[in-house]
Amino acid sequence: MPDLWQEAMDHAVAIARKAGEIVRDAVQNDMKIMCKSSSVDLVTKTDQKVEQLIIDSVKEKFPTHSFIGEESVAAGQPCVLTDNPTWIIDPVDGTTNFVHGYPFVAISIGFAVNKELEFGVVYSCIEDKMYTARKGKGAFCNGEPLQVSDQKEINQSIIATEFGSNRDPEVVNKIFSSMRKILCLPVHGMRGVGTAATNMCMVASGCVEAYYEIGIHCWDVAAGAVIVSEAGGVLMDVEGGPLDLMSRRVVAANNKTIAERIIKEIESFPAVRDDAPVETKK
Amino acid sequence: MPDLWQEAMDHAVAIARKAGEIVRDAVQNDMKIMCKSSSVDLVTKTDQKVEQLIIDSVKEKFPTHSFIGEESVAAGQPCVLTDNPTWIIDPVDGTTNFVHGYPFVAISIGFAVNKELEFGVVYSCIEDKMYTARKGKGAFCNGEPLQVSDQKEINQSIIATEFGSNRDPEVVNKIFSSMRKILCLPVHGMRGVGTAATNMCMVASGCVEAYYEIGIHCWDVAAGAVIVSEAGGVLMDVEGGPLDLMSRRVVAANNKTIAERIIKEIESFPAVRDDAPVETKK
Repeated sequence: MPDLWQEAMDHAVAIARKAGEIVRDAVQNDMKIMCKSSSVDLVTKTDQKVEQLIIDSVKEKFPTHSFIGEESVAAGQPCVLTDNPTWIIDPVDGTTNFVHGYPFVAISIGFAVNKELEFGVVYSCIEDKMYTARKGKGAFCNGEPLQVSDQKEINQSIIATEFGSNRDPEVVNKIFSSMRKILCLPVHGMRGVGTAATNMCMVASGCVEAYYEIGIHCWDVAAGAVIVSEAGGVLMDVEGGPLDLMSRRVVAANNKTIAERIIKEIESFPAVRDDAPVETKK
Repeated sequence: MPDLWQEAMDHAVAIARKAGEIVRDAVQNDMKIMCKSSSVDLVTKTDQKVEQLIIDSVKEKFPTHSFIGEESVAAGQPCVLTDNPTWIIDPVDGTTNFVHGYPFVAISIGFAVNKELEFGVVYSCIEDKMYTARKGKGAFCNGEPLQVSDQKEINQSIIATEFGSNRDPEVVNKIFSSMRKILCLPVHGMRGVGTAATNMCMVASGCVEAYYEIGIHCWDVAAGAVIVSEAGGVLMDVEGGPLDLMSRRVVAANNKTIAERIIKEIESFPAVRDDAPVETKK
């Protein structure tokens, strides 16, 4: 039913834009109040409000579809991908940026059928950049086609990653060790805007060659994965092999050469799978 | 002669905008060609062209003024601040970003008289954000007043810094060690857009609490220093005490509390002063 998925994608774009307006308004107006909250992993009212808005609006149009959303999972909903058409939603990717007004905050909506990603929409709402991709139909930013970088030399590349929010010393050790080894390959530079979705869109846009991270969630990368793939890029696991959406690990790169080169340097560490039974997550 | 300096500042804004158009055009059109050059410290024709454009245009209007410019110094011109009115210019701050089309590239123009900074102009040309500040008159972005964050808790802060372009293992050790100690204070996050001038403007805008780096040059920070200061922030050396523009070390923060807290964690390393005799730089 290709037409139905196009209709779903059009709906995703419309609702991402609407959600983005709410988020942008909150960043630009309510931000100072938000600054008073007090944990690294900040969860704001906007997150919950925006996720509910997206889910309500999709349910009205596609009542049989399923959802995996950051806030719903936090509230105890299961995080399991079935064959049913499923919307995978991060209402506010870049919550720390949001609280500080750092200008990269994205609404990320991925859509899977039979466990295969069909389209992805990432709206980087402060920049006002709408990234979209549908399987087999290319990737776009504000309607302009995207193409990954054609760079094959690691020492001519920029690699994106994040320090993450985990401050466990062993995890921090691994994160710093991987970063250092990649920096000293050497590469041109390392960057990170503070949202997985936008980092992936930067791979798709060709301004960084690759992005990797351990600890992200399926809702951070589902939409970005389609966008990278449709812009000509590759998705892999940090230990090689194909991307497993629920594994909380991702390498998104312009090509396999660059992906495999950085995979050699990444020191992996365990992260509880997104689809693990709720008990094991505690 | 306050009116003369206002005239100089107006000229700086106009020429920064013109320079920014050239740079933006080069990023958006010639970028793919640039990708084939081959060193970490990429110097492009655009750098030289833009610096010459700025110097020629200023010389015509202010024939007695002096200049310190990245490209002129690279070509053997002295890098010494005298009492004469002096334009301190980075034609393209963020050269690596430029080559990759990463969307943070700035034209930075600072202006000093009697060795005191009088105004600063940073044009983040891909974002189209014109940051301006004149001593005693406040800081602005596209005409809107800027104010640093009022955060005093380090664990509620975002700190900006860069990995830099030096791959000497001892330098990399110090850079990573400082980053790790600051990350684990803990802070909310660490960011870096790849240009000193823009990182400083982000301090002025309140979206990061502080920025520090060792290895930058006077032309990277002269303009940003005025902008941070006029937005209510502070400038210090990485070992404490006042900023020394020629020392290649900077801490720019929203307040002294945050500045002094990160200074405790920064592991300093030697960098040849910008105003060192040419022989010692070799």
